[in-house]
Amino acid sequence: MHTVKVPLGERSYDIEIGMSLDQTGPEIKSLGLGQKIAVVVNPTVKALYAKQVMESLKAQGFMAMVIVIPDGEQHKDLDWANAIYTSLLTNAFDRRSLIVALGGGVIGDLAGFAAATYMRGIPFVQVPTTLLAMVDSSVGGKTGVNHPMGKNMIGAFHQPQKVLMDLEVLKTLPKEEFLSGMAEVIKYGVIWDGAFFDYLDNNRDRILGLDRDALIHVIRRSCEIKAEVVGKDEREGGLRAILNFGHTVGHAIEKAENYTMRHGEAVAIGMVYASRLAFATGLCDASVPERVEKLIASYGLPTNLRSLSRKPTVQGLMDTMQIDKKAEGGKVKFVLPTKIGEVVITKEWEEQKLRELIAG
Amino acid sequence: MHTVKVPLGERSYDIEIGMSLDQTGPEIKSLGLGQKIAVVVNPTVKALYAKQVMESLKAQGFMAMVIVIPDGEQHKDLDWANAIYTSLLTNAFDRRSLIVALGGGVIGDLAGFAAATYMRGIPFVQVPTTLLAMVDSSVGGKTGVNHPMGKNMIGAFHQPQKVLMDLEVLKTLPKEEFLSGMAEVIKYGVIWDGAFFDYLDNNRDRILGLDRDALIHVIRRSCEIKAEVVGKDEREGGLRAILNFGHTVGHAIEKAENYTMRHGEAVAIGMVYASRLAFATGLCDASVPERVEKLIASYGLPTNLRSLSRKPTVQGLMDTMQIDKKAEGGKVKFVLPTKIGEVVITKEWEEQKLRELIAG
Repeated sequence: MHTVKVPLGERSYDIEIGMSLDQTGPEIKSLGLGQKIAVVVNPTVKALYAKQVMESLKAQGFMAMVIVIPDGEQHKDLDWANAIYTSLLTNAFDRRSLIVALGGGVIGDLAGFAAATYMRGIPFVQVPTTLLAMVDSSVGGKTGVNHPMGKNMIGAFHQPQKVLMDLEVLKTLPKEEFLSGMAEVIKYGVIWDGAFFDYLDNNRDRILGLDRDALIHVIRRSCEIKAEVVGKDEREGGLRAILNFGHTVGHAIEKAENYTMRHGEAVAIGMVYASRLAFATGLCDASVPERVEKLIASYGLPTNLRSLSRKPTVQGLMDTMQIDKKAEGGKVKFVLPTKIGEVVITKEWEEQKLRELIAG
Repeated sequence: MHTVKVPLGERSYDIEIGMSLDQTGPEIKSLGLGQKIAVVVNPTVKALYAKQVMESLKAQGFMAMVIVIPDGEQHKDLDWANAIYTSLLTNAFDRRSLIVALGGGVIGDLAGFAAATYMRGIPFVQVPTTLLAMVDSSVGGKTGVNHPMGKNMIGAFHQPQKVLMDLEVLKTLPKEEFLSGMAEVIKYGVIWDGAFFDYLDNNRDRILGLDRDALIHVIRRSCEIKAEVVGKDEREGGLRAILNFGHTVGHAIEKAENYTMRHGEAVAIGMVYASRLAFATGLCDASVPERVEKLIASYGLPTNLRSLSRKPTVQGLMDTMQIDKKAEGGKVKFVLPTKIGEVVITKEWEEQKLRELIAG
């Protein structure tokens, strides 16, 4: 097992990489919180892992219950957050009670938002069951739900008490979901660590074969990078925005596809376009978009808009980006690479060039 | 004009007591935020003050719009929070845009919650128009909405950028609303400052006559006390709980009355019962509940359950208190006075004595 510490002052917490779900009970017991626990889960993960987690919790004397949310991003909304509140109130959960988010990003965001806003915030523990949730949503404290007019438009910052990762769960994760997570992993290489980018290039087979040591390295390094960035900028005032590399175009693609495309796939395409925009803007040489596209493609991820179910209009994407929450005072900031391992956050890009790249 | 500073590190802010609503624009301009402002208001306050505020904002070049929420606590819910999100998204509000809560506690809590959760938090400014909102909700950063199963059960901590108080607005406030605010003012005397308690006893006519200097003193001292408490305990880990003096029974009364009774009236009754419980528990001498009851009554506030539309059952009140969010690990903490100006937070009280007092 390897521990990554997320340094956020009194909100600091540990990520345990490579523990067993059987240890969920003792790990939570060590936090010294209340006796009541709600495990939020979707039907798929419930069938696979809820029993193991519940038994571990009950063996430690916790009063644990399961709250089931239907599968799918479309249920990450205020109505389901409200359903969680109602369950918690019905069972007299108080401020020392705890929510466990057992699942992927949807469950983590939704359960985290409920924890952030129930009685103005109760503790929660994340037990991510997807690679994406492990490398992305487990660090940073972003929680939220979707609004019909935009993804993650309603939310709060709320740090977990602990993040518990059993790598065995990745064996039941659909291949496409694993690859979607790899898109975010590749992102960390591009924005922060050229050597990590090279590692991903040189260890493709081990990673895709779920080699335990390779997975621990990949997840640990991803969490370390994100923790370092978030530790310097918890509330997204500046530096943290680099984590949005690939996400500006990516979110617009997700919306154009009505959120039916996997997040990582949309981000993969977004990273390619952002890298091309960086080259077109003169921020990097041609090798950067080439290497980014090549690595993404080598992990079986999409690299252009032809992968969408129907090609969106240039104007449609531009409009969505304008309302994207990274917009400030009307002008969209882009995260653009200057080389592999380094990015800048800039408003200095030409709309016409982006339009040409998207139309291209 | 008098300024009270609320000391919360990077979340510190100023309360301006005695400014004019005509200065809303310049005051907000000085914050250096975005250009878009949504003024959240109910129809009553809109008719009285929205024009003055909007003109002041527009004179400073802000793009300001009004969002109207129907009058009444029953609209402080998730649906109306969602209506605010929709308005903000429709008008492409971003993270630098601002919400102004122009109104009493309902508008402040609801608009503050929307600000806390829109795009994971945007700035907001409170312009309280009731005495209760001035002395209570303007300090502390508590925002929230009601759930059918409990008041303020959904919420977040979110500090305003600034609080602007024009005392002229108190002239249009119904007398009962003013008195309801005085209940919280009296609370500060009991929990923190015996001299302030005496001031309230000795200056009743000036205060009830809305004498400007007396009002400034009352509001300033109330905000100072709350700011001092909150500054030491922003997230309600310990000390801050003393602000709940009178609120445990008070909230149960509000629920028993289906939230039709004014908050301050319920708290007034709650303070009397808490003071009696303190005496019954041997924490203070008999003069404390006597003086508390006498001062409360002298401001025309209710002091016992006979003021309710129908007498609640003892068991009903006890049950509600159990689910109250101050409950921790199942045992309710009470804030009980040891003398005028000092309280303790304790689980050491006898249920039977409370039952007798309530039944009494």
